[in-house]
Amino acid sequence: MRSIYGGTLNASHIDQEVTLCGWVDTRRDHGGVIFIDLRDREGIVQVVFDPDGQDDFSRAERVRSEFVLQVKGKVRARSAETVNSNMATGEIEVYGTELEILNESAPVPFQMDEYTNVGEDVRLKYRYLDLRRDEMQNNLRLRSKVTTAIRNYLDDNGFLDIETPILTRATPEGARDYLVPSRTHDGKFFALPQSPQLFKQLLMVSGFDRYYQIAKCFRDEDLRADRQPEFTQIDLETSFMSEEEIMAVTEGMIRKLFQEIKGVDLGDFPRMPFAEAMEKYGSDKPDLRLPQQLVEIKDLLKDIEFKVFAGPANDPSCRVTALKVDGGAQLSRKQIDEYTKFVSIYGAKGLAWIKVNEIEKGIEGLQSPIIKFLGDEVTMAVMERTGAKNGDIVFFGADKAKVVSEALGALRCKLGEDLDLYTSEWAPLWVVDFPMFEEIDGGWTALHHPFTAPSCTPEELKANPGTALSQAYDMVLNGTELGGGSVRIHRQDMQQTVFEILGIEEAEQEEKFGFLLDALKYGAPPHGGLAFGLDRLIMLMTDSSSIRDVIAFPKTQTAACVMTDAPGAVNTLQLNELNIRLKQKEKPAEE
Amino acid sequence: MRSIYGGTLNASHIDQEVTLCGWVDTRRDHGGVIFIDLRDREGIVQVVFDPDGQDDFSRAERVRSEFVLQVKGKVRARSAETVNSNMATGEIEVYGTELEILNESAPVPFQMDEYTNVGEDVRLKYRYLDLRRDEMQNNLRLRSKVTTAIRNYLDDNGFLDIETPILTRATPEGARDYLVPSRTHDGKFFALPQSPQLFKQLLMVSGFDRYYQIAKCFRDEDLRADRQPEFTQIDLETSFMSEEEIMAVTEGMIRKLFQEIKGVDLGDFPRMPFAEAMEKYGSDKPDLRLPQQLVEIKDLLKDIEFKVFAGPANDPSCRVTALKVDGGAQLSRKQIDEYTKFVSIYGAKGLAWIKVNEIEKGIEGLQSPIIKFLGDEVTMAVMERTGAKNGDIVFFGADKAKVVSEALGALRCKLGEDLDLYTSEWAPLWVVDFPMFEEIDGGWTALHHPFTAPSCTPEELKANPGTALSQAYDMVLNGTELGGGSVRIHRQDMQQTVFEILGIEEAEQEEKFGFLLDALKYGAPPHGGLAFGLDRLIMLMTDSSSIRDVIAFPKTQTAACVMTDAPGAVNTLQLNELNIRLKQKEKPAEE
Repeated sequence: MRSIYGGTLNASHIDQEVTLCGWVDTRRDHGGVIFIDLRDREGIVQVVFDPDGQDDFSRAERVRSEFVLQVKGKVRARSAETVNSNMATGEIEVYGTELEILNESAPVPFQMDEYTNVGEDVRLKYRYLDLRRDEMQNNLRLRSKVTTAIRNYLDDNGFLDIETPILTRATPEGARDYLVPSRTHDGKFFALPQSPQLFKQLLMVSGFDRYYQIAKCFRDEDLRADRQPEFTQIDLETSFMSEEEIMAVTEGMIRKLFQEIKGVDLGDFPRMPFAEAMEKYGSDKPDLRLPQQLVEIKDLLKDIEFKVFAGPANDPSCRVTALKVDGGAQLSRKQIDEYTKFVSIYGAKGLAWIKVNEIEKGIEGLQSPIIKFLGDEVTMAVMERTGAKNGDIVFFGADKAKVVSEALGALRCKLGEDLDLYTSEWAPLWVVDFPMFEEIDGGWTALHHPFTAPSCTPEELKANPGTALSQAYDMVLNGTELGGGSVRIHRQDMQQTVFEILGIEEAEQEEKFGFLLDALKYGAPPHGGLAFGLDRLIMLMTDSSSIRDVIAFPKTQTAACVMTDAPGAVNTLQLNELNIRLKQKEKPAEE
Repeated sequence: MRSIYGGTLNASHIDQEVTLCGWVDTRRDHGGVIFIDLRDREGIVQVVFDPDGQDDFSRAERVRSEFVLQVKGKVRARSAETVNSNMATGEIEVYGTELEILNESAPVPFQMDEYTNVGEDVRLKYRYLDLRRDEMQNNLRLRSKVTTAIRNYLDDNGFLDIETPILTRATPEGARDYLVPSRTHDGKFFALPQSPQLFKQLLMVSGFDRYYQIAKCFRDEDLRADRQPEFTQIDLETSFMSEEEIMAVTEGMIRKLFQEIKGVDLGDFPRMPFAEAMEKYGSDKPDLRLPQQLVEIKDLLKDIEFKVFAGPANDPSCRVTALKVDGGAQLSRKQIDEYTKFVSIYGAKGLAWIKVNEIEKGIEGLQSPIIKFLGDEVTMAVMERTGAKNGDIVFFGADKAKVVSEALGALRCKLGEDLDLYTSEWAPLWVVDFPMFEEIDGGWTALHHPFTAPSCTPEELKANPGTALSQAYDMVLNGTELGGGSVRIHRQDMQQTVFEILGIEEAEQEEKFGFLLDALKYGAPPHGGLAFGLDRLIMLMTDSSSIRDVIAFPKTQTAACVMTDAPGAVNTLQLNELNIRLKQKEKPAEE
C-alpha cells in the first residue's frame, strides 16, 4: 500500500513517484492550494494538492486532522523561500496526484501539541492518541532499540533466553504479592513473581550456565511516582563466574548500549565501597555528576560548648558533616528556609549554614548565625577542610548517622539540580562491599536478599554478622540504581547459616524455600547474577520524568487503567468457580 | 574460573592447558586410574587422574555423580583403541593436574539416563535435575535460538518490540480468564491477557506501524495434553499492509527460521481455501506430509438401495466420502475394529471398508462385507475414482458433513502415522478464505474473533453472513496450526455491523470494547497481524511429544507446579487486604 515512509523522504528522492500512507498532521488552504502535513512513523512530509486533479482535490479539501490517507505523487524540490530547515523533509514536498481517504477521524479530544494542557488522566484515557506524539513515539522506539541491543549483546556472550513462570508461588522479596486464585486447587492462590530470582538460580543448578530474560515482574505496592504494579527487568544469571567477571560482562553491556544508542562512551565504571558512598555522598547510589561531597568534621566539633554539634560529635552513633555548595552564597534566607524544610523530611531538626563572602578577610568575610557558637578557630578550620571559597555556602548536619547521611545526601542532589552544579552528563559507578545484614529492631535483616553470598566463611559470618560484607554489587548511573545483583550462596550449609542469622526457622525455610534448599543439595554450581530495571534505564536514556512516559499502557497511581477500565467487576458465576466471594461491607448500624 | 567449555574440546586443543568447570556425569576407577566424564553446557569430556598428583588424586577418588568440579589439566590425544567416535570430544581427553570440588551432591533421586522409569511427577518435582538431561538442554537452547532468530528477523523488517500489560481487563477470546483481585479497587479484578489483541490494534491506531512481542498469554482452561495455563505467543501487527503482504513477511520469517536453525528449506508455502481443506482433508489444518485425500463419492451412491449410504448421499447436509490408504490391505480385522472405535470418537456410527487384493480380477479381487450392498458396478466406480491398487484399503464415511470430515480427517492422520505413509518431512501451507461466521444454535459466531475483516462491504455482509469470507489466514505445518491472523476491521461502521450480526448489543459493545470502538473513530489505519504459538513451534522443531518438554518450568495437567508447590495457601491477612474471602464449604448435615 506504501512505497516508502514519507518521513524518510529527502532531496535524493526528487522526481520519484511515491505512494505514502499516514495521518493528516495539519491541513492548510493557501490561495486554493491544499497543503497537507502527512505524518507516519518516520516523520512528517508536506503534500501539495492543486485544484487541477478533480476528484482527488475535492477529497483533499475534505480531509481534516488525523484522517488516514493514501497519497500518490511526485517528490519535488521546494522553492528556496519555502525550504523549512526545521523539518527533516523540509527541502522537498510531494506533489499529490491521487488521494484515497482510508479512514476519517472525529475531532480528537485533545490536540497533539496541546497535551500538556490536558490532565494526564485524559492522556491515559485516550492513550492511543497520546502515543501518537513525537515524544512517546521516540520513547517507545528507543525502548525497542534498547531491548534489541541488549538481547544481541547477551546472545553474543552465550546467554540463553529462558522464560520463567508468571503463575508461581509467593516470592521472598518481601513486597506484597499479586495473587491469582486457582480454580482447580480449592482455596489456593498463585502469586505473580516479584522477580525470577529462585527460578534463575535453579536454571544454574540445571547447568544452563548463562541465562537471561527480559522479564515482567509484579509488586502490589502503594505506588509512588516512579513505580508501576508491573515493571520490566533485564534479568540474568551465570555460573562459574566471579563477582569481577559478572560485573565486567554487565558493565560491558551497558557501555555498549550507550555507545550504540546514544553515541556516548561511559568509560570504565569506578568502584566505590558502600561505606565510602555513605560517607562521601550520604547515599548508596551517589550521583557522581555532582562533585560536592560530605566532609566529616566530627573531630573539629568535639570540644565546643554548643551542644547541638558537640553532642553528636561525641556520640559514636552520630555523624557531623559539612557540605560545601559552590555558588550557594546567593541563596536567600527564604530559599534556605525551604531547604531546611526539605531536610526535615529526612528527620533533620535544622540546617545550619555559613555563607562565604570574602574568605580573605577571615571570620569577618563569613556570614552565619552559628559562628558565635562554633568560635572563630573551629569555624575557620571547617572552612579550610571544606575548601570553601568566595560565593560558596557550607551546610551542616549533626545527628544520628542515618539522619545526617540521608538529609545531607538528598540536599546535595537537590542543590545540585537547583543550582545546576553538574560537571558531567553521565556518571556511572559500581557500589560494592555492601554489608550482609543491617540491624533492625534488634534482629538481622538481609541488605539484599537472603541468597546473597558473603565474602567470608559460615563460621566467620556467624561470629560477626554485623561487620560481614556480601558479594553484592549495584550499578548506579546519575544517582539512579540501574541494577543490582550478587554472587549467590551455592552451598547448603552457608544458606542455612544465613537463614539462622536472619531468624528464619527450619519449618519456615522448608515451607518457603524447601525446593531451593533441596536443589542446593544436588550439585549447585557457584553462580551469581544481576537484574536491571528496564523502565528506569529507558527513563534515564530518554530523560523522562515519569515512568509512565516509557511504558505503552501504564497504570495510574491507583493501579488502574483508565483506558480499558481495569480492574473491572466480575460476576458471581466467575467468583463461584474460583470458590471465593467478596467480603461483605460492614453495614452502618440501622437506627 | 574456566578457560573453555569442556564439551567444546577437540583434537585442535591438544597440548593446551585448560581449566574446566562442570558436573561429574560418571566416574570410573580402572586399575587405580580415575576417569571422570565431566559435563558442562556444551557436552561431556573425559578427565583422567593418575595416582601421581597426591591431594588432587584423593579428591578425584572422593567425587561422585553430580559433584561440581573445577579441573585443571592438559588436553591430550586418546590412544587409538580408546578413541570414542560416539562422543564429540571422543578423540581427546584431559589429563588432570588439579581438582577442586566446588560443591558436593547427595545421591540424586533419579539417574539422568533412567528418567523414563520415574513418573513425570518426579521429574517435575526435581525439575532442576530433569533439566540437566541432554534432551531438555537441547530443547531450551533451541527455543532460545528460535526467539533470537525471530527477533532479529522482525527487527530487520522494521518491527518494534513493545510490551503490553499483563494486568489488564478481561479479553474477548472467550476462554476463561485468570483473575487478579485488586487491593486498591475494592471488589474489582484484573484479568491476565488471553492475548494482546486489543492492545496491538491500539498500537496501530497510535501509528507504530509494525509491532511485535513475544508475549505471555493465559487461559484458565481445563488442560489437555498440549495446553498450559500460561503459554507464549509470537505476536505481531502491521499497518498499511495487505493480507498478501502480511503473509509474505511472516512466511519469510518461518522459512528463514527453519533455514537458520534446522538447515531446512521449506520452500514457498502453498495456499489452500478453507473449503478445499475441509473437502480433501477433513480438517482446517491438513497434514500435507500425507498424500491421501478424502474423495467425494456422493454422486455414485445416490441410487443404491443400501440406506446407510443412500440416505446421506441424498441429504444436502451430509457428505459421503472414500479414503484410500496405501498398503492398508494388510490391516487385520482386529486393527480395523480399533479404527472403527477411533472414528466413533468423532461420532461416526461405523467404518465400512474394502480391501484390494487383486484389482485386475475386478470385483473378485476385492474383499469386503459391503460390496453386496453397493453392487458391483458402484463398487468398481468407487475403486476407479479412488485409484485404489493392490494392497490398498478404502474406507467409507457417510454421515453429517461435520462428522464425516472430522472422523475421516482424523483417521487419515492416524493411519498415516501408524503405517508411516509420510512422503515428506515438512509440509507447510496457508489456509485462507475462511468463512466469517459459523452458525451455532441458530445464531452467528465469529470463526476467528470479532475484529476480523470480511472480504466484502458491510451491506454485503449483512445480506449474506453465512457465505461471507474473512481476510483471515492460518499457517499450518505438518497438521499443526502454527499461527493464525487476519486483516482487522479498521472502520467503526464495519465493526458495528459485525457486532450486530453476532448479536452483541450496544450496551455490551460499549462495556466490553468501548475503548476499541472509540479508537476506531479517531483515524484507525488499515491493519492486520498474526500470532504464532511459540510452544507448538518449538515442539515441532524438536519433535517433542509434550508441551512440557519445551518449557523450563511447566505446570501439570491440574495447573500446579509440584516443584514450588504452587498454587499455595495464603493467610487471612492477605485475603482481608484484598477484601475477599474463601467460600465456606457446605458442611455435611449433622446427624
